[in-house]
Parts: sequence; C-alpha cells; structure tokens
Amino acid sequence: MKLYAILASTVIFNTTYGSVFVGAFALFSSKKLIIPTDDFMALPITPIPQLDAARDDMKTRMELMILRVQAEVCKALEKEEDCNKFEVDRWFRHDAGGGGITCVLQDGKVFEKAGVNISVISGNLSRGGVAQMRSRGKKLKNDEPPYFVAGISAVIHPRNPMVPTIHFNYRYFEVQDGDDLVWWFGGGTDLTPYYLSTADAIHFHATLKEACDKHDKSFYPKFKKWCDDYFNIPHRGERRGIGGIFFDDLDQPDRETCFKFATDCADAVIPSYIPLVARHKHAPYTKSERDWQLLRRGRYVEFNLVYDRGTKFGFNTPHARHESILMSLPLLARWEYMHQPESKSPEGELLEVLKNPKNWIEDCSCEES
Amino acid sequence: MKLYAILASTVIFNTTYGSVFVGAFALFSSKKLIIPTDDFMALPITPIPQLDAARDDMKTRMELMILRVQAEVCKALEKEEDCNKFEVDRWFRHDAGGGGITCVLQDGKVFEKAGVNISVISGNLSRGGVAQMRSRGKKLKNDEPPYFVAGISAVIHPRNPMVPTIHFNYRYFEVQDGDDLVWWFGGGTDLTPYYLSTADAIHFHATLKEACDKHDKSFYPKFKKWCDDYFNIPHRGERRGIGGIFFDDLDQPDRETCFKFATDCADAVIPSYIPLVARHKHAPYTKSERDWQLLRRGRYVEFNLVYDRGTKFGFNTPHARHESILMSLPLLARWEYMHQPESKSPEGELLEVLKNPKNWIEDCSCEES
Repeated sequence: MKLYAILASTVIFNTTYGSVFVGAFALFSSKKLIIPTDDFMALPITPIPQLDAARDDMKTRMELMILRVQAEVCKALEKEEDCNKFEVDRWFRHDAGGGGITCVLQDGKVFEKAGVNISVISGNLSRGGVAQMRSRGKKLKNDEPPYFVAGISAVIHPRNPMVPTIHFNYRYFEVQDGDDLVWWFGGGTDLTPYYLSTADAIHFHATLKEACDKHDKSFYPKFKKWCDDYFNIPHRGERRGIGGIFFDDLDQPDRETCFKFATDCADAVIPSYIPLVARHKHAPYTKSERDWQLLRRGRYVEFNLVYDRGTKFGFNTPHARHESILMSLPLLARWEYMHQPESKSPEGELLEVLKNPKNWIEDCSCEES
Repeated sequence: MKLYAILASTVIFNTTYGSVFVGAFALFSSKKLIIPTDDFMALPITPIPQLDAARDDMKTRMELMILRVQAEVCKALEKEEDCNKFEVDRWFRHDAGGGGITCVLQDGKVFEKAGVNISVISGNLSRGGVAQMRSRGKKLKNDEPPYFVAGISAVIHPRNPMVPTIHFNYRYFEVQDGDDLVWWFGGGTDLTPYYLSTADAIHFHATLKEACDKHDKSFYPKFKKWCDDYFNIPHRGERRGIGGIFFDDLDQPDRETCFKFATDCADAVIPSYIPLVARHKHAPYTKSERDWQLLRRGRYVEFNLVYDRGTKFGFNTPHARHESILMSLPLLARWEYMHQPESKSPEGELLEVLKNPKNWIEDCSCEES
C-alpha cells in the first residue's frame, strides 16, 4: 500500500535514509506539484519545499527525471535478477553542496555488479575547471562561478559472458556566470559485449537511433561516431566496446528541446538493453569464456581509470564520494601478459570490431570512424 | 655447459631472441671486457661492440648491472616457484631508440604473475617532458635534448594471500643538454602485504636500511618517508602497501657513489623478499582471505593506473610497449562497493597501517609520515 503524506518540514528531507527508505508522496495543494517519491529509490536530494518553490526550474525537472529513470532502471534490472535487490545509499557532500543516491546490486545471480547512481551537486567551479571549460569553447567571464550539475550514471556488469555490459550517463550542467546562465546537456549510452551478437548490436543501436531520430536525423550518425571516438583506449588501439551514442555541450536549439532529447535517450536505456539480458542470461558458458570476459573487464578498468573524463572530474572534485565514482569498476578483472586471441575465434572477431568500429545500421549514413 | 663465442657482427644483436635464447659469453681480447651474456635472460639491448667501445661509460655499466640483477631475481623466483618458468621477450622500439627485455612468469604455482622488465631507451625529450623536469628543478637549457634511460622494474604478485607483493625499480637517467651532461638515479623497493606480519615488515625494512646505511645514515629515514608519501592513494586515504624506500633525482655526491648505492639497493631485493616467500608460500588460506587479497589488488591497479608516474611516463612515450608497462597489473583484481573490514580483524589491522604508516625500525629516527 502506498503512503501518502503532506511533507512540510525540511528537517525530514535532510536526513540520510539509507536502504530502509519508506516512500511517500509529497502533495502540495497550492499548484498540486505531485512528486511520486514512493516510486523513487530514495527521497530527492534537494529538499522538497525547495523543489516545489522552483517547480518549473530546469534544475528541478532534471532532478525529478533522473530520480524516475534511476528507479525504473533499478526495477527493470531487479526483475531480471530475480534474486538480489539494490542497496540504496543516499549521501550528502560534507561542507559542500548537494549529494546523491547510489544504488548497487552486487554478487547477484544475473548481475555480478550493477550500479545506478544519481547526483545533484552545486558549488563553485575551480579555476582549473573554468580553464578546461573555456578550452572547450565556453565563454565564461568569471574565474570561480557557481555551478550546478544533476546527472544519472550507471554501469551494469552481468555475470554471464554472453550478456553485454551497458553504461549510460545523462547530465545537465549550469554555470551562473555573472548575469548570464550558461547551460548544456551531455550524455550517452554504450554497450560492451564479450561475445559479439550482430542481432544484439543492431537492436541496441536501432533503439538509440530511434530516440535520436525523433529529434534530429543528424544526431545518431554524429553521436555514434563521437561515442566510438570517446571510448577509445589508445595504448591498446581498441575501443572499449561496440559504442552507442555520446554527446556533450548540447545547447541548441533551446533548453526545452535539449531536455526532451536527454529524457528520450534515458528512456531508451531499458528497451535497448533488457531484451539482451533476457535473451542470454541463461546461456551456457565455459571457464575460458569467463576468463575472456574478465580480461575484457580489465580493459574496461584501464579506460575508466586512465582516460574517462567523468572519473577524472570526480577525483578532482573536492568532497567527491569515491565509492560512487568507482562503482563502475567490475567485481573482478583480469590482466594476462600478451594475450592474443586467434583471429578466426569468437574472441578474435570481437577484437576486430573493437579495433575497427562498424556501422550497425546500414542506411544511417554514419561517418566512418 | 656454457658457450663461449667471440661475437663480432652487430646483425646478431639486433635480432629478437624471444624465449629460446641461447646464452653466450662475449670475449674481447683487447682489454678483456667479459660480458657474461650466458647468465642473462637475453642478450643486451645495446650491441656488444658498442658496449665494448664504451666499457667505462655509465650507460654501459648500468645496462650490465640491470641485466645481471634481472637474471638473478628471475632465477631466485623460479627456484621458489618450482613449476613455471619465465617467458622472455626481447623487444625493440620501432623507429625509435632502444628496447628492453621483459620476463613474465604467469599462472604459476607460487607466483600468479611475476614481471621483471629492463629497458634501455634513448631518444629526444618532448617539450612537455622538459617542462616537467624543469618544474622538478632540472636546469635544462634546450627544449628537446637527447636523453638516455636504463632501468629495471619488477612487480611480483604471489598466489597465496599470506605472501606479500613486491615492487622495485632502479633507473639511471641522462640528458645531453648542449655541452652539459645532466644525470640522476632514481628507484625504490616496496612491499604490499595482504595480511600483516610484523616480523616480515621488520625483516624487509631492516634489509633495505642496511643497504642504505652503508652509504649514508640519512638515506633510509628520508627514503622511507618518501616511499610512504609516493605510494599514496588520495581518494582512498590509504597507502598502497607498507612502503620501503623510494628516491629520485639522486646526483650527489658523485656519479660513482650514486651508481654503487643504486646497485646495493637492487642487490638487496632478493634477501629482503625471498625469505618471506619461502616462509609463507605453503600457508593455508580461505576463500574470504583470497577475496581480500584480490580487493587489495584492485587498489594496486587504482594506484598504478591513476597516480603512478612511471605508468604515465610510459603511456606518454611514443612507441612505448604497453604490454611491458602493464605487466605490473595483477592477474586478477576485485572491486566491491563499500567494502569495510572490521577494525579488529586481520584485514582491519592491515588497513590501519595503510592509513597510518608505521616506523618498523625503532632506532632509525624516521620522520613521521
């Protein structure tokens, strides 16, 4: 039975609820903003009266969107898992603004490690951060302006080597640069299979393309190439996986349209991925296939720790929560010296696609990566 | 039976010998430079006539020293292993100067992964490299001067969680800055136990201290602290292990003395470590102790990929051999979300020492870390 409550005291919302969260609906009679907190994994990070007072603000809308998507993804995964449940940590940054909700399901029957994290952070940019943004073309006048970022980020590592790993991340960034508000969206969804299934790859890319095409036909080919370029491991000459979409600094044509696009992409995660889990989770596999999966997870660790901008940004953010940043790392990873699969083997075939990214959808006029 | 041969053709020396290397002695009658190549894991990287022509050059002496130490360490480990042997790869940098010899023993009975690498590299420094050296106090006038570096580097990951991991690295660096030769030595040896044995820690540190004390009583306390400071994982608030010694930019009082010090340190590796392997390699252990070892190996990977200067230098060196750089990574590593051992457990006791480094030798007047 759902609990309905009119929550008026901010004291309640500043408490860390941990994993025994009892959901509630927050009803505000004036304009009837209904926040379905009962459906979320935990209460919002921003106190509800504050969300209510700024209900049309993009900050509020983004926070509520990522709370909804987090819960939907966690529930869809739990349904496939049929065993373990997500543990929920609601956390706040000490002496700094904001916090997050980290949901992790570990050592399950289907999922070896699945992490779905949202964070809602505010503070002042460092001079280094501003310099980095200027180098990317942001026209910022102030050296340490206030910023806000709300995002969802997830990595799902299944146990069965026939089920691919998925990663996705959608975020909204705002910088208050004097009187100017500078904002943009970024994100992406990408797949890391251990054994290549062309049908899976096509289904995954086609689902993302559909979400993109609703907005702009140029998005999928552009963001597909960006994804192949981003998830690159230069020292290996390999991509991390078979890609998907990736974009950053999206601020055209207007904020409303960008928000709808990010929302549609986030909503495409479940239909792009859950069918692949259902299809392969009971597939038989050998120890040598498991070893290959762990070896590819070693490459995943290399990318995340050496090259990933999100991880670097996290490590460089004061009071960042390293357990949430590193939840993307697999439960187990393997490094063998000079491992080289036979080119005609299933492992070799995957490697070929990682070295030379493929276009999975023929008529998309994708640029060659 | 040893083979003796007078080797005159440089063609022979440029061949990669791989793992089926047949050793030989190189005799040069003029001044009788005897290079005991039969005792090495492979032929030197520099052609023997070139070594012979510059027999008193520090470059030659360093290359011969690291070749000797590499072979001695590999043989001492093989004696403990009693099963697998080291595989030997002699490699050269394409279109660039120098190469190396990488020896790896993988999936053994005692050693899960042991890598002992030497490299002898020359080329021109990048502008970035020079800027980085200037920031460390090197007075370099030229922007892209020629350099030479010869070093040995090893990481030994045993299978049994009661046997610690050891890492060591000794190197000689030379920059030809116009008419000036700028040179320095660097290196260190450090231990990463999974279960703390005070007797082991004292033996290890005492052996290193003895090597240091022969040269300068101030070395051990200074280099012990430097080691604790260097092998730090800031985002965890932990050291990688229980330290040892670490130094860099050593160029005082003179080159001969520094070379002797680096040699003595390298020669202290076997007596500091092999007794610990022999003592614990047959110790019984549980699955949960093995899991803790793999979890600590995850931290090892975090340090090496995120913070280690050697790994970064390797990734930024054109034509670097990534398999040799990454041989330091363990065969298996584990990441658990929010793992926290009980403070009174053996795991918690280790963690306490990793968070607050200890002085293992009472009368050394070590500075507090």
